[in-house]
Amino acid sequence: VPDLRLLPTAALARAYRRALLGNARLLDYSDPRGDEELRRAIAEMLSSVRGVAAPPEAIMITRGSQQGLYLVGRALLQPGDTVAVEAIGYPPAWEALRQGGARLAAVPVDREGLDVDALAALAARETVRAVYVTPHHQYPTTVSMSPARRLRLLELAQRHRMMVLEDDYDHEFHYAGRPLLPLASMDKHGVVIYLGTLSKLLAPGLRIGYVAAPPPVLRALAAHRAIIDHHGDQVVERALALMLEDGEVQRHARRAVKIYRMRRDLVCEALRRSVPALQFEPPAGGLAVWARAPRVDVDAWVTRARDAGVAVQSSSPFVFEGRAPGCLRIGFAACNERELAEAVRRLARAMPPRGKG
Amino acid sequence: VPDLRLLPTAALARAYRRALLGNARLLDYSDPRGDEELRRAIAEMLSSVRGVAAPPEAIMITRGSQQGLYLVGRALLQPGDTVAVEAIGYPPAWEALRQGGARLAAVPVDREGLDVDALAALAARETVRAVYVTPHHQYPTTVSMSPARRLRLLELAQRHRMMVLEDDYDHEFHYAGRPLLPLASMDKHGVVIYLGTLSKLLAPGLRIGYVAAPPPVLRALAAHRAIIDHHGDQVVERALALMLEDGEVQRHARRAVKIYRMRRDLVCEALRRSVPALQFEPPAGGLAVWARAPRVDVDAWVTRARDAGVAVQSSSPFVFEGRAPGCLRIGFAACNERELAEAVRRLARAMPPRGKG
Repeated sequence: VPDLRLLPTAALARAYRRALLGNARLLDYSDPRGDEELRRAIAEMLSSVRGVAAPPEAIMITRGSQQGLYLVGRALLQPGDTVAVEAIGYPPAWEALRQGGARLAAVPVDREGLDVDALAALAARETVRAVYVTPHHQYPTTVSMSPARRLRLLELAQRHRMMVLEDDYDHEFHYAGRPLLPLASMDKHGVVIYLGTLSKLLAPGLRIGYVAAPPPVLRALAAHRAIIDHHGDQVVERALALMLEDGEVQRHARRAVKIYRMRRDLVCEALRRSVPALQFEPPAGGLAVWARAPRVDVDAWVTRARDAGVAVQSSSPFVFEGRAPGCLRIGFAACNERELAEAVRRLARAMPPRGKG
Repeated sequence: VPDLRLLPTAALARAYRRALLGNARLLDYSDPRGDEELRRAIAEMLSSVRGVAAPPEAIMITRGSQQGLYLVGRALLQPGDTVAVEAIGYPPAWEALRQGGARLAAVPVDREGLDVDALAALAARETVRAVYVTPHHQYPTTVSMSPARRLRLLELAQRHRMMVLEDDYDHEFHYAGRPLLPLASMDKHGVVIYLGTLSKLLAPGLRIGYVAAPPPVLRALAAHRAIIDHHGDQVVERALALMLEDGEVQRHARRAVKIYRMRRDLVCEALRRSVPALQFEPPAGGLAVWARAPRVDVDAWVTRARDAGVAVQSSSPFVFEGRAPGCLRIGFAACNERELAEAVRRLARAMPPRGKG
């Protein structure tokens, strides 16, 4: 999770006020696709920073990317449809995608992200209606999908008329040079449904995400969204539009990237020094380190760390099926330098004895 | 809809600010049941004003009552379950209740509300898993369910283990003496799932509703809610909690009730004078008049009124099945005196010629 202490809450409070005063109609019933001004601001951000050319009409605001995925699951997928997912990934997304009766099939993930050859083999055997991917920083392993795989994935999707559900949940947080642009930026055939969120960039509690997709897809999502909760909260949507227009969000992003890069460096150094049992590459982006812990019972480690006041995650809950790889996911963004140093000390002390090789 | 011009927006902006500053954890991931302080404030309101003894643990905040109904449809109803609904009622509720595969069956509504004898006959023929009702001011006909029917409905529900989905969407807006208390206040056997909202009391755009139900029911709803959008927006939830604790909401309600009562009297008088073709009783509460228009094509009237800048609704879209009763629903709350007088003039002029008797 991001460090909520970095948030410009005073600016957010001002933005609420500006949104609200003189705009009583923001409190009326409204469009299930969300506030027009926020859709415009998101469109501008997507085209200027991420190379995604989606006009406001092709964008819908959702209650976090979770609602976007839920809408896909309910409005676009039919009972019995096969959806490919990353074999190690994000369970709440799987749960959302299952809500229309889709069957999920796992595709392996390696150091280049989703194994597109394995997906191709699956698609040769049966109709795969959609594939859910996190190419920017694969969740939870943090790897970026290689450019070659990206091209191959889009080509495969186009050939099989497979929807690519691209979850780009932390685009801004890339530390090593310029990030690769999203799959959606290279999508010439309208196969990508692009899901973004302000949960990592600003705060999870705002519950603001968005979907960029071809208008017929968006219409289907909006129709179902109207049944769930009519529409979003236009006051917070307009407040965030104002903060994007004023550059407040962008300023916050630049500041947060600098701080998180420092924290990444610091946690990697401290882990190397104090927890030699962990094997990892410093992540090129994101808010966590993914580390292998050979011959260590990581689930026991997580429990012992929690008892010592340190929250880390084991790979077990992220595994779709089969054996967990025995890894730890160590979030570093929410802790300052002092807290990180202390957390790594406690994590080292909490490590259970190593088993035989 | 309510008159958004009456809203204390400055107080709301202050409440956002108070909620936000010094409470950054409101922006973190949180409980799918909603902000604890708002649940406490709603519990206090339900017990002190509506006679409903629901502790905060038995309350869940939703994105309007629509999401509450959607959750019931998805989490409590199974494919093939029968749900009884008012034969003239609220289509978005029906749509939500259908989302888990339930089959809806219409039960007639008359001047005492839902015909409980007809429901009893239905329940004798087949298992009725739930009944959706608007007993306070039946939507859209505005009638209040009689005390005798309320008792009989609860007794029937208990006997058949039928859930009573009580949608109490405009409790505060009652003009004729003390309102009857909700079914939930008389529910000794935990058969009622009580749905409320701040959409009419404050504003639809806030998308804040709530469900009061026995804890096991609430757990099932919360589990599904986590899949839809994780949880609500705690900033607006906390802001509304502060406004309830400060009595701002209650002050607004008292002021709005006075104004709406005046507007009701005014519109009824103007309609009697200028549109004698309409037959109606002044509603005891709510934000609209329900009027019969014998021998008039009400759908044509609605279109002609819209062309003249006046929004009224025909009974047609509210009918579950069968013939529409040829009524108009005339909302009066959102217009001030001058606007109401002008609207009634235009409505009178827009009336199509009457057909033969």
